[in-house]
Amino acid sequence: MSDHHVYKRVEIVGSSKNSIEDAINNAIAECSKNVRNVEWFEVVETRGHVVDGKVGHYQVVVKLGFRIEGS
Amino acid sequence: MSDHHVYKRVEIVGSSKNSIEDAINNAIAECSKNVRNVEWFEVVETRGHVVDGKVGHYQVVVKLGFRIEGS
Amino acid sequence: MSDHHVYKRVEIVGSSKNSIEDAINNAIAECSKNVRNVEWFEVVETRGHVVDGKVGHYQVVVKLGFRIEGS
Amino acid sequence: MSDHHVYKRVEIVGSSKNSIEDAINNAIAECSKNVRNVEWFEVVETRGHVVDGKVGHYQVVVKLGFRIEGS
Amino acid sequence: MSDHHVYKRVEIVGSSKNSIEDAINNAIAECSKNVRNVEWFEVVETRGHVVDGKVGHYQVVVKLGFRIEGS
Amino acid sequence: MSDHHVYKRVEIVGSSKNSIEDAINNAIAECSKNVRNVEWFEVVETRGHVVDGKVGHYQVVVKLGFRIEGS
Amino acid sequence: MSDHHVYKRVEIVGSSKNSIEDAINNAIAECSKNVRNVEWFEVVETRGHVVDGKVGHYQVVVKLGFRIEGS
Amino acid sequence: MSDHHVYKRVEIVGSSKNSIEDAINNAIAECSKNVRNVEWFEVVETRGHVVDGKVGHYQVVVKLGFRIEGS
Amino acid sequence: MSDHHVYKRVEIVGSSKNSIEDAINNAIAECSKNVRNVEWFEVVETRGHVVDGKVGHYQVVVKLGFRIEGS
Amino acid sequence: MSDHHVYKRVEIVGSSKNSIEDAINNAIAECSKNVRNVEWFEVVETRGHVVDGKVGHYQVVVKLGFRIEGS
Amino acid sequence: MSDHHVYKRVEIVGSSKNSIEDAINNAIAECSKNVRNVEWFEVVETRGHVVDGKVGHYQVVVKLGFRIEGS
Amino acid sequence: MSDHHVYKRVEIVGSSKNSIEDAINNAIAECSKNVRNVEWFEVVETRGHVVDGKVGHYQVVVKLGFRIEGS
Repeated sequence: MSDHHVYKRVEIVGSSKNSIEDAINNAIAECSKNVRNVEWFEVVETRGHVVDGKVGHYQVVVKLGFRIEGS
Repeated sequence: MSDHHVYKRVEIVGSSKNSIEDAINNAIAECSKNVRNVEWFEVVETRGHVVDGKVGHYQVVVKLGFRIEGS
Repeated sequence: MSDHHVYKRVEIVGSSKNSIEDAINNAIAECSKNVRNVEWFEVVETRGHVVDGKVGHYQVVVKLGFRIEGS
Repeated sequence: MSDHHVYKRVEIVGSSKNSIEDAINNAIAECSKNVRNVEWFEVVETRGHVVDGKVGHYQVVVKLGFRIEGS
Repeated sequence: MSDHHVYKRVEIVGSSKNSIEDAINNAIAECSKNVRNVEWFEVVETRGHVVDGKVGHYQVVVKLGFRIEGS
Repeated sequence: MSDHHVYKRVEIVGSSKNSIEDAINNAIAECSKNVRNVEWFEVVETRGHVVDGKVGHYQVVVKLGFRIEGS
Repeated sequence: MSDHHVYKRVEIVGSSKNSIEDAINNAIAECSKNVRNVEWFEVVETRGHVVDGKVGHYQVVVKLGFRIEGS
Repeated sequence: MSDHHVYKRVEIVGSSKNSIEDAINNAIAECSKNVRNVEWFEVVETRGHVVDGKVGHYQVVVKLGFRIEGS
Repeated sequence: MSDHHVYKRVEIVGSSKNSIEDAINNAIAECSKNVRNVEWFEVVETRGHVVDGKVGHYQVVVKLGFRIEGS
Repeated sequence: MSDHHVYKRVEIVGSSKNSIEDAINNAIAECSKNVRNVEWFEVVETRGHVVDGKVGHYQVVVKLGFRIEGS
Repeated sequence: MSDHHVYKRVEIVGSSKNSIEDAINNAIAECSKNVRNVEWFEVVETRGHVVDGKVGHYQVVVKLGFRIEGS
Repeated sequence: MSDHHVYKRVEIVGSSKNSIEDAINNAIAECSKNVRNVEWFEVVETRGHVVDGKVGHYQVVVKLGFRIEGS
């Protein structure tokens, strides 16, 4: 077994009508369908659409880090 | 009708005792009193006052983008 | 009495299972055990651990500003 | 007459189907309808929409500087 | 009365032949002709013209924050 | 159907002998061979090779955003 | 044959108990298992774990650039 | 005696009614009450309060570096 | 012959009435009068003068890299 | 026992005549004399003195994170 | 005569015992011994040495822009 | 003799097959052939070429500071 790991970091944009936390969780959930071992997230940008003078959707860009399998 | 639009982006600081999301919505609501067509927001800074060892107010600086009317 | 104050700004990482706001408050609460007069916070980074395809902990790095006593 | 001037800098987002230069000029032209004396621009962001695998619109955020009249 | 305030932040470029402090004050003075309640400033850039091997004018870009009236 | 979408943002470097706009379009075209639904681009860096005192190739790093299918 | 190439840039986190250079090489080696033509790297972050008052692992985030095959 | 030194860098906010230089000196003076060997400063932010259309206080955030005693 | 090269990177501001690309080429052409082996450029800032509501000159700050002769 | 931890992040400048890695380890070692539980480091700046056309000392600014005891 | 100019931008560190403005002027004065046509400056960093709990020297890094002769 | 010095800061890219430290030293050595009194360096970028799945050359961009003679 290797004594070191290698990780990949990808940028996912999650969105939610409810909250910033929901948008982060939606990004992680979607990414986890294809990738095992998502281990951490980092918020890169927080933005969103405005509809009728209120937030329509929060859009949160997160970097997600996961271990490359076999590493 | 023009085939291109022009937008303006202004910096508003919303505040709230409750949450970051509330502070964003307060900024948008205030701006929407004077400007129609606010279409998006971008969070620039998140900060606030501390009172008695707890957050007193969240202060969130957002850039708000709106289409310039007639453009 | 001096006509000017001097402040110190330290970096604290608060964490929470629930929300970004909770993580900020946990950072402030811990710092307030040792330091009086914490007056403001600034969010520097928002990140966290992922467990089973969901946020495990939010980790929020905040700068906390407090007046140096006697200044 | 004053021996110093004061300027304001605003953020405008110009767009164009053709080029980055066109988008910059559209931002300036729109702003010049309301403000005299726009003197310089600074490109802050260059982005745009993609339609059918090609650029649909260039969107260029520029800071525009103009002298405040009377200053 | 509302329990939260909303602020706007604008970018003004003040100039002075004498000092950086003067340039900041000139920016604030000009802005205060049109806006009540300027509450804080943040220096964004410090630059200027050179004439005959000396500073001709200091040009200081400041963000000025003021409370939106009625908020 | 979900009430929120999830996007991925990848970094592609397009190049062109002719113009910055061409380099952006080449990046988008190449990416669109493998990914449907590229929706927006953001220019991150503009650079290039110099040959015989002239631009040989423009190299433009763009972030390309596309909706993850099924989200 | 095309007169221009297109590249992709991905973020990989290599780690090593020994040195920053080793961590970079581990990132490149892992990536090269799946991708041909990795041509350059750019160090984005250098960090790591501390164990017993010494560096346990260096963790180096690198952007790796490779030509998209066929481009 | 060690052939290498170790330094700490802390963030202090000095303020002054008079000038940016005074605010820097006030930060250094306050820090020097508790720490010997402050050796350098770096200005991080320059900001302040506005009172009656003039600068009320300059607030300058400086990083102060000092050698850790015994190192 | 050395197995490694050393490069210098200088900042040149090219200008043009026509386009950003022209401004870049003007910067490279001027620099190439004095320096052989300019190998690459990186755009640092894009700005310009406005005349009568249109771009008067594009001013593009580029970093130009060239190999130091003999290295 | 709390279900969340709180960390502090301090800036230390380590130096070494030999290597960047040594400078990092010297910073950690010095900090660990006073603080238990240093858990991670982040390199912020890498610089140094030059003596006789060679590196005299590497000076590496690191942020060191440690858990606040009792949290 | 050319309808466009080309400028070079160099980084000079001026110092002064008295003020930030003096340090800027010292940088410009020294540069003007060798280069005609210094036209503008931009402050990049403000730092300095501390001696006996007071500023010993202000050190201000400025970018100086001058037209390349003949361009 | 002047009571203040003036320094220049130039950007040099050193390269090495072996290590980041070697690349830094190569940059300093080359610069010292033409300039006396190089006093400090600051690492700006660390990057390099990849050959056969391994680092071919480290390329380290450093700012080198030297006192202008006579100042």
